[in-house]
Amino acid sequence: MGITSHDVARLAGVSQPTVSRALRGDTRVSAATRAKVREAAAALNYVPSEAGRSLSTRSTRRIGVLVTDLTNPFYPHLIAPLHDELERLDHRMMLFTERTEAAVAADRLLDRSIDGVVLATVTLDSTLPEELRRRELPFVCLNREGGSPSSDAAVVDNRLGGEIAARELVRLGHRHIAGIFGPENTSTGRDRELGFRMALADAEIALRQAHTRHGPFEFETGAKALAELLETTPVPTAVFCGNDVIALGALDTAKRASVAVPDELTVIGFDDIPMASWAAFELTTIRHDMHEMARAAARLLVERISGSADSAEPRRVVLEPELIARGTHAPAAGN
Amino acid sequence: MGITSHDVARLAGVSQPTVSRALRGDTRVSAATRAKVREAAAALNYVPSEAGRSLSTRSTRRIGVLVTDLTNPFYPHLIAPLHDELERLDHRMMLFTERTEAAVAADRLLDRSIDGVVLATVTLDSTLPEELRRRELPFVCLNREGGSPSSDAAVVDNRLGGEIAARELVRLGHRHIAGIFGPENTSTGRDRELGFRMALADAEIALRQAHTRHGPFEFETGAKALAELLETTPVPTAVFCGNDVIALGALDTAKRASVAVPDELTVIGFDDIPMASWAAFELTTIRHDMHEMARAAARLLVERISGSADSAEPRRVVLEPELIARGTHAPAAGN
Repeated sequence: MGITSHDVARLAGVSQPTVSRALRGDTRVSAATRAKVREAAAALNYVPSEAGRSLSTRSTRRIGVLVTDLTNPFYPHLIAPLHDELERLDHRMMLFTERTEAAVAADRLLDRSIDGVVLATVTLDSTLPEELRRRELPFVCLNREGGSPSSDAAVVDNRLGGEIAARELVRLGHRHIAGIFGPENTSTGRDRELGFRMALADAEIALRQAHTRHGPFEFETGAKALAELLETTPVPTAVFCGNDVIALGALDTAKRASVAVPDELTVIGFDDIPMASWAAFELTTIRHDMHEMARAAARLLVERISGSADSAEPRRVVLEPELIARGTHAPAAGN
Repeated sequence: MGITSHDVARLAGVSQPTVSRALRGDTRVSAATRAKVREAAAALNYVPSEAGRSLSTRSTRRIGVLVTDLTNPFYPHLIAPLHDELERLDHRMMLFTERTEAAVAADRLLDRSIDGVVLATVTLDSTLPEELRRRELPFVCLNREGGSPSSDAAVVDNRLGGEIAARELVRLGHRHIAGIFGPENTSTGRDRELGFRMALADAEIALRQAHTRHGPFEFETGAKALAELLETTPVPTAVFCGNDVIALGALDTAKRASVAVPDELTVIGFDDIPMASWAAFELTTIRHDMHEMARAAARLLVERISGSADSAEPRRVVLEPELIARGTHAPAAGN
């Protein structure tokens, strides 16, 4: 096995547990001692074995993060702050995607190589939360939530966000309104649609079947759905999109079809990803603090793992959305 | 310790090594046997311990991937196919970012919790490749290369790409040409600039100091640099950008400054990320096969780790770039 932490301890003149702590960057060890230990480790070409450490402490300080599609421009903006917050809390991130065969993914999450899981793209019908609960692997839902029973989660008030979008369209005098929503088996898709419908109903506007589309939270969903909506009669004067990425797809089709935004068509998105503010789009959208949501999820999970959570009950952090008025909304023509 | 693989073996009526192989999805075990073992494992609520497996086989089947900035729209398009190819080769991906303190990042890569590393954002002046070589941790460079000595790498012929861009601008009659390049300490920044300058020199056009900018491969780099370039005299009629993300930033500034693209200004990018083809941009760019590059890197690394590489010498996969002519290029005004 060669050099061990005991050799490093002897050379540095400290105890073996101090070597372990120092190399983990534990701040209970003074900076001077950490430097001394690092020097000794370097001199001996010693690198701590994580596998060994993991067997001795039963903790890997690794967090699995499960996402469906990393190429969707939304997720990197969640994953980057999540990664940074986990680092700050002295945990590392391991990325899994659900494109992996489901059974294999569950097994991997459960094979004890990680201490907990962030579910970033869980669906309402997924059995994974139940499976994780049964196997007692801590997890937190980020952005999306699973079905009941509830678990730790950091989410947006999606229903309120949908309501805000609807109230804005009503205020602008739109009556022929369309919705391109996310998947019905996601909490974000379902709740944004629900809030939107409820606020329209309050204004005595019904969302027609012909003006409703659902699909993955992707560019192609918006591009394809708007092409179809432009063929309906009456043609909608406004469309609320389940997220910004769908809205960018809708804007793409509008541009190709020479439909003037916002004069002929109002488009409202959801999330306020950085691209929404680019000059090419100037997308009016429902903003929420994605960075804070990701950081909250990291904290909830690490507290759950360490046993420092203030309650055994599920804890939820719910962020408030707000309207960001840019350049893709206008009063309905004729108003 | 509870249930072990021996218990599963007894219940399934197979040997213990067969249990390990079956649960790893090893195809040397028949599908029927794998199903039987899975059933037995489920019945006993048994999940293989990866830490234990790692100590016994000295292999974690985990690959570290190092990137600087995941929110840069370029990287997800590299990471997604990389992840999928590693999965296909029965390895898992662990994501590290260089925002992590450098010494800590190196230690983590070296702590034996991974079998190898993909360096996706290495710089020419980084000491990391040398350190990994010294510690004998296999690695491959993806997209960017480090300084000498060379290592396994999957890259684009960046110099040729720069040449192609320059020749197109010359063909279109541009004489006042600018460049917004990537960082000088990256192989992609350096080689694209070098090829561009060389082909311009062949046409007896010199790239003026005042028309040259460098910066991170980010939207803000292009946005800021073009604002400065528009203040120079003579004002450039064409600008080559170190990558598409920089080009999108340049287009943003052009739009805000009411500079007509391509009538008043030609813009050429590099990479052909999906966004380049959106109607809002229609970016003319230098394309290469990002997916194939990522897959090649995964294969090179896994072959190196398994000892099945056909040579101990560094191996390079070099992809050919090509011009994709869309809507942001036009003949120089007055030609």
